[in-house]
Amino acid sequence: MKKILIALGGNALIKQGQTGYFEEQLKNINSAAKKIAELTKKYQVVLTHGNGPQVGNLEIQMSCNDEIPKMPLDVEDAMTQGQIGYFIQKSLRNILPKKEIITIITEIEVNKKDKAFNNPTKPIGSFYSKEIIKKMKIKNFIEDSGRGYRKIVPSPEPKKIIQLKTIKELIEKGKIVVSCGGGGIPVIKQGKKYKGVEAVIDKDKASVLLANSLNIKEIVILTDVEFVFLNYKKENQKKLKKIKINELKKLLKKNEFGKGSMKPKIEACINFIEKGGKKAVITSLNKLIPALKGKTGTQITK
Amino acid sequence: MKKILIALGGNALIKQGQTGYFEEQLKNINSAAKKIAELTKKYQVVLTHGNGPQVGNLEIQMSCNDEIPKMPLDVEDAMTQGQIGYFIQKSLRNILPKKEIITIITEIEVNKKDKAFNNPTKPIGSFYSKEIIKKMKIKNFIEDSGRGYRKIVPSPEPKKIIQLKTIKELIEKGKIVVSCGGGGIPVIKQGKKYKGVEAVIDKDKASVLLANSLNIKEIVILTDVEFVFLNYKKENQKKLKKIKINELKKLLKKNEFGKGSMKPKIEACINFIEKGGKKAVITSLNKLIPALKGKTGTQITK
Repeated sequence: MKKILIALGGNALIKQGQTGYFEEQLKNINSAAKKIAELTKKYQVVLTHGNGPQVGNLEIQMSCNDEIPKMPLDVEDAMTQGQIGYFIQKSLRNILPKKEIITIITEIEVNKKDKAFNNPTKPIGSFYSKEIIKKMKIKNFIEDSGRGYRKIVPSPEPKKIIQLKTIKELIEKGKIVVSCGGGGIPVIKQGKKYKGVEAVIDKDKASVLLANSLNIKEIVILTDVEFVFLNYKKENQKKLKKIKINELKKLLKKNEFGKGSMKPKIEACINFIEKGGKKAVITSLNKLIPALKGKTGTQITK
Repeated sequence: MKKILIALGGNALIKQGQTGYFEEQLKNINSAAKKIAELTKKYQVVLTHGNGPQVGNLEIQMSCNDEIPKMPLDVEDAMTQGQIGYFIQKSLRNILPKKEIITIITEIEVNKKDKAFNNPTKPIGSFYSKEIIKKMKIKNFIEDSGRGYRKIVPSPEPKKIIQLKTIKELIEKGKIVVSCGGGGIPVIKQGKKYKGVEAVIDKDKASVLLANSLNIKEIVILTDVEFVFLNYKKENQKKLKKIKINELKKLLKKNEFGKGSMKPKIEACINFIEKGGKKAVITSLNKLIPALKGKTGTQITK
């Protein structure tokens, strides 16, 4: 059966305008699970997911009680892997009772000298007004997608998936594996020992590293838009339908894509194709099935 | 190689008097990892852990910001599985770089009619004064081990480990598997679908279910005391060294053991032996090695 990697955006669970109530996330993951279950008829599905909204919420919750210590961001990444992995495996198992769906707590090695550590770019958590950002004493933040202000953290390049061997073995046994959640838990090597770092690896870059490591030829990056756009949310915005990586590279050079949101997705897709991938699709969850038939979504090839 | 199940208490990471700072938990898990790594020379180690202090802290952190929704307890269990699993796998891997250490997000089915749901007994989180308990609007709480007041939640009996097959396969491949964290995520079956429930399964009972399911003959329950005591913390307190399950049953009938803390451990050990286990040891982390040589700790046999 042909393998496909589906990267669920953190916003597949917490949609625009939602605050992330359990019932909201459960409803969202259940509808995502329906689509994914449908794919399992044709594909062997490998799952990854983001954690932006969830880890952002957790960051703030952990900061708001002085009596109880906050965990560092790498530990919060691990916590959201447990949280979202549980959401996904339970919802999917309720539709596919005979399938084994397994969540692996995944660490990913990053370079301790990665420039990202001096230059935070990854938005996490909810959108806030500038007043609330100040009130919450958030140091690094940006205005994101015209929807408000968000905290930003370093987003280093993923280098090595520590638990890859086990992930590979489980997939080869036909299980559905949820791994590299939230882009994986970023760890650096100091001498011979691993140490967690406060960062969020871009989940699409981590997903591409996983796909290429497993020799998966097709990936789908699910986000909250049906297409990648040029001049997004401007009068002259333009859908990108079928596009080759060389054209994408030119557009990247012109800074056509949102730094925090779309740019890393595009970079990830180019990287995926250059390292042996055949097709990368960027679309929304609702369009997943038609997009895989080539009928919609942004279709990226060599 | 002989298999052994080691059940780490949540207090192996957050010790008496500690509040649970990351650095505290890291230091504690590193010293636990040293002992466990030593065991891997003689045994194939299977790991489980508690989450009482961690899930209790998370409960309170998640409750203290009105703008961001709290997750239900089953989701918090999943989050602490990710948190503590990450702590354990990283620390242990830093000592045993060639070993694969894998954390599996584990759901455990409980009976939706379990009496525990009407009778919360499991203490979670930190010890508080009665004033703070009131301030935090905690409804169900008890005075625990003479150290203060703790929130209590339902603790249903574990019936079925959902991810057992994969856990078994990974152990048979020689990997060190961390599973059933915090007693597993409690789920009930409604019709054909699984649903999470707000509870904390006793991690020792879940560990015994795992050990018996894997036909493991020896388990060690690590807690914060070297021995089980009669008349604990009273003038006439008495160490229990070597003891048979029939004697333990008599002591249980006399309510000799603390309801929230030691009683479920004793019940778990009796259950383990009755279902085919050979030896159950209750001791502290520092005494793990001598206890396995029979030199200290409470040694429970048929």
